[in-house]
Amino acid sequence: MIDPTWIAVDWGTTNLRAWAMGADDTVLGEAVAASAPLATPDLFERALMTLVRDWSLGPATPVIACGMLGAREGWAEAPYRAVPCTPLSDRLLRAPARDPRIALHIVPGLKQDRPADVMRGEETQIAGFLATTPDFDGVIALPGSHTKWARISAGEVVSFQTAMTGELFAALSEHTVLRHVAGGPDWDEDGFAQGVTEALSRPEAIARMLFAIRAETLLDGLAPGAARARLSGLLIGAELASARPYWLGMRVALLGAGRLTGPYAAALTLQGAAPLRVNAEAATRAGLAAAYATLSAAG
Amino acid sequence: MIDPTWIAVDWGTTNLRAWAMGADDTVLGEAVAASAPLATPDLFERALMTLVRDWSLGPATPVIACGMLGAREGWAEAPYRAVPCTPLSDRLLRAPARDPRIALHIVPGLKQDRPADVMRGEETQIAGFLATTPDFDGVIALPGSHTKWARISAGEVVSFQTAMTGELFAALSEHTVLRHVAGGPDWDEDGFAQGVTEALSRPEAIARMLFAIRAETLLDGLAPGAARARLSGLLIGAELASARPYWLGMRVALLGAGRLTGPYAAALTLQGAAPLRVNAEAATRAGLAAAYATLSAAG
Repeated sequence: MIDPTWIAVDWGTTNLRAWAMGADDTVLGEAVAASAPLATPDLFERALMTLVRDWSLGPATPVIACGMLGAREGWAEAPYRAVPCTPLSDRLLRAPARDPRIALHIVPGLKQDRPADVMRGEETQIAGFLATTPDFDGVIALPGSHTKWARISAGEVVSFQTAMTGELFAALSEHTVLRHVAGGPDWDEDGFAQGVTEALSRPEAIARMLFAIRAETLLDGLAPGAARARLSGLLIGAELASARPYWLGMRVALLGAGRLTGPYAAALTLQGAAPLRVNAEAATRAGLAAAYATLSAAG
Repeated sequence: MIDPTWIAVDWGTTNLRAWAMGADDTVLGEAVAASAPLATPDLFERALMTLVRDWSLGPATPVIACGMLGAREGWAEAPYRAVPCTPLSDRLLRAPARDPRIALHIVPGLKQDRPADVMRGEETQIAGFLATTPDFDGVIALPGSHTKWARISAGEVVSFQTAMTGELFAALSEHTVLRHVAGGPDWDEDGFAQGVTEALSRPEAIARMLFAIRAETLLDGLAPGAARARLSGLLIGAELASARPYWLGMRVALLGAGRLTGPYAAALTLQGAAPLRVNAEAATRAGLAAAYATLSAAG
């Protein structure tokens, strides 16, 4: 039976992921479930305990968790820390749990007052990346439903901004007329590049470029793979236009799953940038390990 | 019993609307049903005949129809006419019907080759507006799920473009994280104006402005009515940025239902334009009557 020294938890909006960690931060086991909005702290606790039910626990096995469980509507609210600041502090939120076998600690998210922005979970990935690359100076982009762009200097998050590109792509390709043309798994690199270039060269015209995908399908026989890739390209191009001060002339690291960072790497490369692609799962675990270390150090 | 000389039909993506028309184009009766995608011509015919079942018909009562029934996946395909051209021609598509009590004629939509764009139904509204305002020179905007902007000169549609602003608003406010903050019926004029101004002054930054609505709700207590109106303002502002060559310094007529033209009128007025608001239903009927007149003239 797996007997973790501590448990690392990444509570995202899509997946809830837990790792059983050994004393030297080796991974003893992993468990994943789909994530869903939960109404009460008890439901959060039940979801976690169900996920890790096969592991040997307690008493008071430390659980270090980041993500939406720290939101106002989460398990327990871990108030945002304001940038500029390090991605992690040594003050985790000690949150209540009914089950005495665990001791829950939540990593607070970050906020920015002007322009208003928030993150929960990405701060831990940033901390994990910086744990292995402490001298990094530049921008970390974290593609996803809500893609974050964070300026990093001297180990601190200086500023950040969010674009909801992933959700926009899903909403447009599933809930508008583009579902008829941009559905299916096909993909066309040229169509993607065209979308990126069009959106970046005329970002003010994006509103009409979206419907043009539908029109070209009807009039010119634009194929589904090209339509789907063009839509993605237009949205990522619009995001790059919005984030231009973040990536132009900067060192950029893309942190995420390969299917997410791939299109961003392609788009940035088209613009002459040379982004570094980094596996996000390892970074998340490294960030949670760094948080666990501050806890141990604090006694 | 209502005994129409002819029947006017507007087959939109939201509603299917029929009017029983007298010999002098007076309205004898009206019937409305929700519209839905239909798989076969027979289903289109059944939907129409069910809608008008209480009227006295035939033999071969003329039915003049515009909208999606003329699409490739419609009742019968009425090929697009290419702009520049008058909104109506004297060549309607004589489409087959099983029921001998009706003789169906479909108004073709319009297409533009470069940039690719299409419309079906709006050409009839434009024709109806021009029937009462033949000297109009300027731009007609038709707000809706897919808002159309059409340049009119010398009675012709010179060019047009589409923004899917209505669908975008619905998709974002129902199927993304903004559903938590931009739901409900509340509305705040100042929030709307702020969105329009922000999007028009920095259209390249729209991608990050959308998520800021969520962040300001969390950090600054932005109220639902202000969030909802800001979202609408950002999207209409983005559309106006995209359509700037269409409205800047031009005479603009807004053709649509009041709840649709209202926000566009407000946004354009903020930009110093003085749009004319026109009722779309009367325009649709006038356009179908003009199409019926060409049919009668042709013999």
